[in-house]
Amino acid sequence: MTDAYDIKLPDPQPPLQVGMVLYPGLTALDLIGPQSVLTAHATTYLLWKTRDLVMSDSGVPIQPTATFSDCPDDLDILFVPGGMGTPDAMVDQEILRFLRDRGARARYVTSVCTGSLVLAAAGLMQGYKATTHWSTRHILEALGVECVRARVVVDRNRISGGGVTAGIDFGLTLLALLRGDDAAKLTQLMLEYDPAPPFNAGAPEAAGPELTERILSVLDPYDRQMRRIVAERSSGAS
Amino acid sequence: MTDAYDIKLPDPQPPLQVGMVLYPGLTALDLIGPQSVLTAHATTYLLWKTRDLVMSDSGVPIQPTATFSDCPDDLDILFVPGGMGTPDAMVDQEILRFLRDRGARARYVTSVCTGSLVLAAAGLMQGYKATTHWSTRHILEALGVECVRARVVVDRNRISGGGVTAGIDFGLTLLALLRGDDAAKLTQLMLEYDPAPPFNAGAPEAAGPELTERILSVLDPYDRQMRRIVAERSSGAS
Repeated sequence: MTDAYDIKLPDPQPPLQVGMVLYPGLTALDLIGPQSVLTAHATTYLLWKTRDLVMSDSGVPIQPTATFSDCPDDLDILFVPGGMGTPDAMVDQEILRFLRDRGARARYVTSVCTGSLVLAAAGLMQGYKATTHWSTRHILEALGVECVRARVVVDRNRISGGGVTAGIDFGLTLLALLRGDDAAKLTQLMLEYDPAPPFNAGAPEAAGPELTERILSVLDPYDRQMRRIVAERSSGAS
Repeated sequence: MTDAYDIKLPDPQPPLQVGMVLYPGLTALDLIGPQSVLTAHATTYLLWKTRDLVMSDSGVPIQPTATFSDCPDDLDILFVPGGMGTPDAMVDQEILRFLRDRGARARYVTSVCTGSLVLAAAGLMQGYKATTHWSTRHILEALGVECVRARVVVDRNRISGGGVTAGIDFGLTLLALLRGDDAAKLTQLMLEYDPAPPFNAGAPEAAGPELTERILSVLDPYDRQMRRIVAERSSGAS
């Protein structure tokens, strides 16, 4: 294996140190969208407890490139993707401990999709505005976070993106903050990010109630699991 | 590792058999965009010569889930991503042999980004219209393929997407063809694909000549390598 193909865009500053947390059942696109946007200006660490493969919720096995224990102490960006495995990650004490530790020192604490629920479970999003996948806004609120309906939400050093594909818009927003508009535009051009969705169904309002209901019924087991987690946290805290 | 998180949307038809070719220096987002779109209706095989990790051009190590020799014989979709490793893939006889074999029988022969150049190197795109990353249209033409400037090009059973992020639009177009508009819309909603790029710089015309020139200079070594390959093919064929 080699990094020989890794392409850096000219940048007078040292590479951003980006820690991206993996977990079983993450959504690969939540991770790969931002990773692809940031890579030309970053050293990205794909982090897990061990160096064992981590399986995404769509069946893509990803190899961690560092572990929680050998991850750099001070990250420019701490990032958590979402995915079907989010409920399990929300109660994984080893993940939460790692997030609290690096999150206390990272310049930016960030997420895409339901990754914000994991950050909230670690106590890192309370007091900030954030967003999540459209189907889970009530869970974020129930965790004591003010949920904003937006593609990307920036609140001081907390930056969160909406569901899955929002990770590309999230990444470009973050890159512009850290390296300026031209760096973000160059990356947008490199990735030919000139979207042309063949349908207009990317949000519940556009897709309509019938399709929305069908997605919610598929996601129902995960919703139940998260509601249980939130209820247990509330009773534990009382 | 488990597929426990794999989410299928209700579908009366058996899963699509999707073979996705990996190679060192592929662009992970070229792969993960379409894989994420198709996964709810598909069994995807991440294919390489061996089961050794394959490193993407942004440094994401991906584990193949099948090899060229144990890949199913008859695929619904044969797919090739692009990436900085494309020039090497274009002269890799083992890859080209595999593509010719499965491509002769696949229902759809497809690509995103510079993946169409690998298909063209295998002789599978000549006589069809196709597209590629904006920076490599002259290479596709030089390989004897009519290059169309479009986000997604459908010509009979050849379907190609433009650069990197076009893979999401490509995947939705392909899914609609195979499973109908509602299936594509459901997936679009699941992936919250309601893009909101923070800048308008996703194509050379929008980004302007200065940013375009900066990308072309970064890509110049790859361009030279591909021009050499095309020249050698032409002299070899004469």
